[in-house]
Amino acid sequence: MAIKKGSKRRKRRIVLASGVFDLLHLGHVRFLEEAKKAGGPNAELVVIIARDSTVEKKKVIRPVVPENQRCALMGSLKVVDEAILGYGNFDIGKVIEKIRPDVIALGYDQRDMEQTLRDYVSEHRLNIKIVRIGKFSSDELDSSSKIKQRIIEDFTR
Amino acid sequence: MAIKKGSKRRKRRIVLASGVFDLLHLGHVRFLEEAKKAGGPNAELVVIIARDSTVEKKKVIRPVVPENQRCALMGSLKVVDEAILGYGNFDIGKVIEKIRPDVIALGYDQRDMEQTLRDYVSEHRLNIKIVRIGKFSSDELDSSSKIKQRIIEDFTR
Repeated sequence: MAIKKGSKRRKRRIVLASGVFDLLHLGHVRFLEEAKKAGGPNAELVVIIARDSTVEKKKVIRPVVPENQRCALMGSLKVVDEAILGYGNFDIGKVIEKIRPDVIALGYDQRDMEQTLRDYVSEHRLNIKIVRIGKFSSDELDSSSKIKQRIIEDFTR
Repeated sequence: MAIKKGSKRRKRRIVLASGVFDLLHLGHVRFLEEAKKAGGPNAELVVIIARDSTVEKKKVIRPVVPENQRCALMGSLKVVDEAILGYGNFDIGKVIEKIRPDVIALGYDQRDMEQTLRDYVSEHRLNIKIVRIGKFSSDELDSSSKIKQRIIEDFTR
C-alpha cells in the first residue's frame, strides 16, 4: 500500500497512529486530525487501539472502556479511516508489516516509543516518516486522566 | 429544509436528536445511528447539545466535559452532519423552527420530552414524525453514569 516511486497513479499515503483512547475526548480527535495532515491531502488514517491486556501490563491500570468499545468508537470518528485492535503482545515490526504506513504519528505522551521506532525503521531501511504531534490546549479537559480526576472530585466533594 | 410534497427534487430528510452527550461512548453513537436511519436513506442528522447551564438546572450536576468540547466531539462523528449547542433556556418551539426537522428521535432516557413534543407537534399541526430509540446492550459500559461509576470504583478500591 506504500507509494511506489515513479508510479503514475499515486495511492493514498497511509498514516498510522496508535493509543489507548480510553474516555474519548477532543484531545484525541485533534491529535488524530494533525496526524492525518502529516500524510498530506487525501491521506488515509489507520488507528491501532491498544488491547486491555497491553494497557494493564504497561500502565498497571485497566482501561475504563473495554477494548471492543474503544475500537468501535474510534471507527465512528470522521477522521479515522480504519480502527484496528492491536496485538496482545505489542510488536512494532508486525504492525508495520501489516499496515505498511508512510507516516507514523506519535502523541505527546508517546515519547518512549519514538526511539524504538526510529531504531526499527533505520535498521530495516524503511521509508517511513516519524512525526511527533504536540499537545492541545493544556488547560482544557483534554486528557482521560483529567476527566477521571474531575469525576472523582465531583464524587468526593 | 423540510420535504416539499410534489417537488421533483426531494431534499434530504432532516432528523433531529438532542442530549448532553457527556463522556462520549458507544451507546451514544448507536443511538445516533438508529436516529439517522429513521430519516430513511440519505437523511441528515442534526444534533443539539445541551448547554452546561441547562444540565445543571435539570440534573443538578455539572457535566464533566464542557459544552464546547461536547459539541465539537459530536461534530467529529461520522454519523453527525451538524452539531449545534442548544439554547440557554430550552425552548422546543425555537429549536423546531430553526432546524425544521422531518423526524425527531428520542433516546430511551428522554421519556419526559415525548409528551411535550407530541403536544407541540399536534397543536401546531406539524408534519414531524417522533420516534423513540431503544437502549443498546444494557450490560455493556454504554452509559455515562456507568463510566463514572467504574472510575469511582477503581478509585475507591
